[in-house]
Amino acid sequence: MRTDLPTDDPRLDALEGLDPSTIASALNRAAGEERRAAFRGLPPAKAGKVFGLLEPSSQADVLQALEPETRRAFLDEMEPDDRARLLGRLPEEEAERLLQVLTQEERALTMALLRYPEGSAGRIMTPEFVRLHPAMSVADALAAVRAGERRAETIYFMPVAAEDMRLLGTVDLAALVLADEASTIADLASTDVPAVQATDDQEEVARFMKEADLMVVPVVDEGNRLVGIITFDDAMEVLEFEEGEDFARTGASEPIQRPYLSVSILRLVRSRIVWLSVLAIAATLTVNVLGAFEDTLESVVALALFIPLLIGIGGNTGAQSATTIVRALAVRDVRPRDALKVALREVETGLLMGVAIAIAGYVIVSVFFDGAIALVVAITLVAICGLAALVGSLMPLLARKLSIDPAVFSAPFVTTIVDATGLLIYFMVARAVLGV
Amino acid sequence: MRTDLPTDDPRLDALEGLDPSTIASALNRAAGEERRAAFRGLPPAKAGKVFGLLEPSSQADVLQALEPETRRAFLDEMEPDDRARLLGRLPEEEAERLLQVLTQEERALTMALLRYPEGSAGRIMTPEFVRLHPAMSVADALAAVRAGERRAETIYFMPVAAEDMRLLGTVDLAALVLADEASTIADLASTDVPAVQATDDQEEVARFMKEADLMVVPVVDEGNRLVGIITFDDAMEVLEFEEGEDFARTGASEPIQRPYLSVSILRLVRSRIVWLSVLAIAATLTVNVLGAFEDTLESVVALALFIPLLIGIGGNTGAQSATTIVRALAVRDVRPRDALKVALREVETGLLMGVAIAIAGYVIVSVFFDGAIALVVAITLVAICGLAALVGSLMPLLARKLSIDPAVFSAPFVTTIVDATGLLIYFMVARAVLGV
Repeated sequence: MRTDLPTDDPRLDALEGLDPSTIASALNRAAGEERRAAFRGLPPAKAGKVFGLLEPSSQADVLQALEPETRRAFLDEMEPDDRARLLGRLPEEEAERLLQVLTQEERALTMALLRYPEGSAGRIMTPEFVRLHPAMSVADALAAVRAGERRAETIYFMPVAAEDMRLLGTVDLAALVLADEASTIADLASTDVPAVQATDDQEEVARFMKEADLMVVPVVDEGNRLVGIITFDDAMEVLEFEEGEDFARTGASEPIQRPYLSVSILRLVRSRIVWLSVLAIAATLTVNVLGAFEDTLESVVALALFIPLLIGIGGNTGAQSATTIVRALAVRDVRPRDALKVALREVETGLLMGVAIAIAGYVIVSVFFDGAIALVVAITLVAICGLAALVGSLMPLLARKLSIDPAVFSAPFVTTIVDATGLLIYFMVARAVLGV
Repeated sequence: MRTDLPTDDPRLDALEGLDPSTIASALNRAAGEERRAAFRGLPPAKAGKVFGLLEPSSQADVLQALEPETRRAFLDEMEPDDRARLLGRLPEEEAERLLQVLTQEERALTMALLRYPEGSAGRIMTPEFVRLHPAMSVADALAAVRAGERRAETIYFMPVAAEDMRLLGTVDLAALVLADEASTIADLASTDVPAVQATDDQEEVARFMKEADLMVVPVVDEGNRLVGIITFDDAMEVLEFEEGEDFARTGASEPIQRPYLSVSILRLVRSRIVWLSVLAIAATLTVNVLGAFEDTLESVVALALFIPLLIGIGGNTGAQSATTIVRALAVRDVRPRDALKVALREVETGLLMGVAIAIAGYVIVSVFFDGAIALVVAITLVAICGLAALVGSLMPLLARKLSIDPAVFSAPFVTTIVDATGLLIYFMVARAVLGV
């Protein structure tokens, strides 16, 4: 038994003695050419195991480097859901070419999954499971498990279905093992287990499995007919993918979807330049606002000194609200219909913090500069914090309402909006207080 | 069978017919008083199931509302790892009081877990598992499984240990069910399964289980003696908790650790005011920088117009780098020793984007303002983007090196640093180009 966590990456030329998951991590992190070379160097028995543990992008990459025969063998070995995910990530003609390589049966299974819309539960389910009938005895069921074990993704959990595939319940392996020989599957089956629709959103399904601690969930079609099962590990992959996406977008990037060190600089630029440009264009609004107040600025240049401080605090307050709400939406703690309640809570929070910082700011600015400017800064701070919290909470909720990823309209966008409107407030307050 | 995802929250007064996980979600989201009242209203049989699915903070909350007898029953029923987590979250005297309520055996189990440091694997393992001996026959093992089933957290996976508890391997239930009657546990056991140390960091362990697709991992002490097992669902809880923490800190907040709508405004303020104040104090640096260039500003007021735009673009570039690197560190795609490589990649990325935006900026500013100022803006943009990417990539890496959560030193801190240094660059470039 190994008792150390593989915290360090092995060198690619020294993978030999390591376990498959450590090798897979190292290959995921490597750049394309090195990854393919290292993979080709693996002993065949190990290569298969490692392949199954690679991320889809790395799988697609090493497949290119294999002989047609080996490629076919690897593809045939994969679970249909993993295969559908892999093919879904490839360019269409490449996916089409690989589909042709499969045995007819495996091809049919995979194509059935690919018919479900991207992002649906159908894409991550496996159609390979052991299905039990209600009339089976425990011994029959155990025989069915033994017979089906090689193909099924899991035998820890078996759906029970009628002849017409109508889902009746589920039985887990523990129940079978612990059961009295005389009982039938109908006696053992749990019938209050939830099922999901193949067309349900996969993130919703994954989040639900996590909340309800479900290791497996059966998937049915519109007619409540069993079409597959989703296992916990695939559900957790979905959540990790979504979390990575949220994280990237909160930082004004698109997710790069592969290990950081394995992507090229140009790909990094591509994942960021669009959002950076959009935000830069939006930020030109601040030039216009300041341009409109150029006279005020000219007569009191000292006002310029506080511009970065004020919009910085506003931006941070907005980022706090936005990030909190994006996360709350992602984990389903908040829903769009809570918008009013959320906005009120956030504005209250923002104003409270604004007042606290304004008091400190007033004291400091009036000591080092003068009382009138201190008053302008203090009033602006309260207003800007309240405004930032409002914008920061409503933007993600609005995005969700419009079926846009809330993370897209979080911190960076909120900051940019708050910059421009904050400046407007600042100079209006300055004109009123200073009489310029 | 239910075939709908519970996408909507039920009303708290209409929980009766719903399944435990839906009720638990609704209670998690409710405010304290309503939650306790609704929980007291549940039928006893259902209350126990719901209790097990509640988040630790909600469990602690409803426990307060129970009769001493019921409280004891609920606590005794919990898995030791869930109980340790719950007690770990409570104030010390409260935890102490609840420990006294437990049966002696359960108290001993819980205290054994609480002796491991917070954040260690020992805290999330369960000491209740079915342990097999290498000499057992399959029938013996199945009998042991049946006998131990009620107490063990899982019977899908059994560690195999010698008399002195030295870990020898593992056997899963599927292998037992499929095995030939004549084989012994020694024949069936997998011996190349990794184990983790009870003192290992629980996030590392969870990340490892996810990468290696391990449903259960055995936990050993320094002497390689078996002390517990960690199940996948508990590992995923850890990852979700850490991800929530990263997310909050990237948005300059501390995590609130419970459903958003269930916490008070004051708690929201508390989770944010410290970071906001620290950042505000750091941001006063910008006032000093601008103060030092007040003469320059007075002679060319137009320079002020571009301040928010330039520091906004710098801040966004820095946020992109910081967020990418925080995530890459969290998922172990990048390690501190990669710092140089990462910094070079990020600076290259930042400079490329800076040049692109500078060209566009030069054209626009020279059309609407004048060529000299356009040149100042363009040069500053290139410098500020390169600088922001450098700071944005190095801050999280430095934090990790110093064993501080990288997310703490991500987007908001980077933005604040880039604001001040970016202004310095801007005015130095302006002085050089404009000769003021």
